[in-house]
Amino acid sequence: MMGGRRGVASFPLQKPLRVVVTGAAGQIGYSLIPLIASGQMLGPSQPVILHLLEIAQAQKQLQGVALEIADGSYNLVHDIVLTSDPTVAFKDADIAILVGSFPRQKGMERKDLLAKNAAIFKTQGDAIEKFASRDIRVLVVGNPANTNCAIAMACAPSIPRENFSALTRLDMNRARAHLAQMVSARLSAAAFPASTKVTVLPAQVKNVIIWGNHSATQYPDVNFAVYTNDKFQLSETLVRQIVADDQYLNGEFIEKIQKRGAEVLAARGLSSAMSAARAACDHVRDWILGTPSNEYISMAVASDGSYGIPKGIVFSYPVRCTGNGKYEIVQGLKWDDFSKQKIKITTDELVEEQQIAFEFLGIKK
Amino acid sequence: MMGGRRGVASFPLQKPLRVVVTGAAGQIGYSLIPLIASGQMLGPSQPVILHLLEIAQAQKQLQGVALEIADGSYNLVHDIVLTSDPTVAFKDADIAILVGSFPRQKGMERKDLLAKNAAIFKTQGDAIEKFASRDIRVLVVGNPANTNCAIAMACAPSIPRENFSALTRLDMNRARAHLAQMVSARLSAAAFPASTKVTVLPAQVKNVIIWGNHSATQYPDVNFAVYTNDKFQLSETLVRQIVADDQYLNGEFIEKIQKRGAEVLAARGLSSAMSAARAACDHVRDWILGTPSNEYISMAVASDGSYGIPKGIVFSYPVRCTGNGKYEIVQGLKWDDFSKQKIKITTDELVEEQQIAFEFLGIKK
Repeated sequence: MMGGRRGVASFPLQKPLRVVVTGAAGQIGYSLIPLIASGQMLGPSQPVILHLLEIAQAQKQLQGVALEIADGSYNLVHDIVLTSDPTVAFKDADIAILVGSFPRQKGMERKDLLAKNAAIFKTQGDAIEKFASRDIRVLVVGNPANTNCAIAMACAPSIPRENFSALTRLDMNRARAHLAQMVSARLSAAAFPASTKVTVLPAQVKNVIIWGNHSATQYPDVNFAVYTNDKFQLSETLVRQIVADDQYLNGEFIEKIQKRGAEVLAARGLSSAMSAARAACDHVRDWILGTPSNEYISMAVASDGSYGIPKGIVFSYPVRCTGNGKYEIVQGLKWDDFSKQKIKITTDELVEEQQIAFEFLGIKK
Repeated sequence: MMGGRRGVASFPLQKPLRVVVTGAAGQIGYSLIPLIASGQMLGPSQPVILHLLEIAQAQKQLQGVALEIADGSYNLVHDIVLTSDPTVAFKDADIAILVGSFPRQKGMERKDLLAKNAAIFKTQGDAIEKFASRDIRVLVVGNPANTNCAIAMACAPSIPRENFSALTRLDMNRARAHLAQMVSARLSAAAFPASTKVTVLPAQVKNVIIWGNHSATQYPDVNFAVYTNDKFQLSETLVRQIVADDQYLNGEFIEKIQKRGAEVLAARGLSSAMSAARAACDHVRDWILGTPSNEYISMAVASDGSYGIPKGIVFSYPVRCTGNGKYEIVQGLKWDDFSKQKIKITTDELVEEQQIAFEFLGIKK
């Protein structure tokens, strides 16, 4: 048998899913496509037909990417569609990852940026409405991701709003990894004999939450984060208790996660691609295949009014995914005054963003 | 349990392996690192300590890459070492993937290119000799890969020569994928009812061989390639018989594979990275974990005189990997006159390349 131990493909294969990637010749696309093609996103027995969308000017590069996908000898890629036409790209699409967006350019005001992207995501929402599978799941990665998602959703009213989401998993992964390092440092410092290093895997840190907007106003919330200190998950300790430094966790830590994208950009000279692609893969995998029952993850989804957030704005919540592309917003978590204040800032920003974008498109809420 | 179904990590984890990537901030490195970090190369229960080597001028970008690795929240990455010093990079290394090399620049003669790279791979070979694990496995990806590998090997005489190899898996993957497409087209054309599409997975095409140098003289050999037409692999048909077009297979096909790198470069404006990283991952995985018993793959390894190839040159052969990083050159395949002629060309080139490089370094064969 092919696959199995070698992790290439498991038989029998399922019916192929049509997976759209927009901005497919860009940096994130280039890191994301191999994750889809190799089964890391949808599992080792799920073939895909890749629908790759790019602007007309990037079609040649897109063809180059397609050559490389062929050269990858991926058993799960059963066909590739290359196009600059959204009506072709979204035809019968089962999953869409909307990566391409208009980047902020020098001298551009925030309003202009929102307007430029509103136009793009309106076109794509329209195409989803007319051509996609009624069961499509849409993940928006391109910034401003929450508001772009709200626009696509508004333009595809016949698709359930629960089928749309935006990426805050990158922020969650960043927060989780950083906390795992801090927990490791604390436990190592307390270990006997001295100089013992206690390895803490990111997966052992659970339930860190990103609330709100995927922007510098996001609120990475440590209050419910736990460290699972054995692999059978029988015992959990609050991360806040282990780190024992509220000043750091309520100050520098939050700022670090909020500004991590800028830190990567400054070092690489290019924005995050590898880690953004990884987060998009994690997001879709958990959404489609489900999260473990004792854990929640962060996704930006249409508010249903939970926690008093205005209905309809796309807001990052803690969610549990129950498999088959369903999620539930985790209910009943208590906010302290500090959290309330932070969440108000990011909520206000989202309301304003969406207002500007919707006004531009002439959409009434 | 984490992992399992979700393919993230399987417990219990093994002792971490130290994996060196050179040219780690470059394009191929950026595509390769996530494959190592996510367990696609060494399996879902094998943690790694990444040793990332870059030239001094690229240390800032390398730090950016390290930020993104952290942000990827990879459970299998237990530590990261960033350095511009080969003696640090190769310290206790278990696996080394030598990606960085000096690229051909305008007006540069082949001799200059060989000399530039000879110097780099001598330094790395010296560091491997002095600092690496005696069980290290080395894969050379940076071009001219075969000769660079021969140099590193020559400079690390206390490491068994069987522990060195160079990448021709990219060429094999390209040839395999192309043949799978051709077989699919032929079978679809003959299928009933008309317009039935017969899907042929790359993995169903086996034993295509790359002989010789990873360069435009390589010989992609279809004579032993078989199509396995059911998943239990009970029945095999020669690809040459299905394609039934010797003129194409002995002409255009060979040229297409030889020049595929240039085709990708022309389309993308950048050389192959995604597919090169994928091939490097495939190569190491098969080498360490083994190939299925009824299949062989192509790796450039030190000639032991098999098939009359001069001993010591690094030559791409069909090999079987038996697990634990051991390979055997497949013996007894018969060459027809056409193959003999093609293989002579690539052998002569390799002998000459190596002579130039070794002369430059003052190494006697």
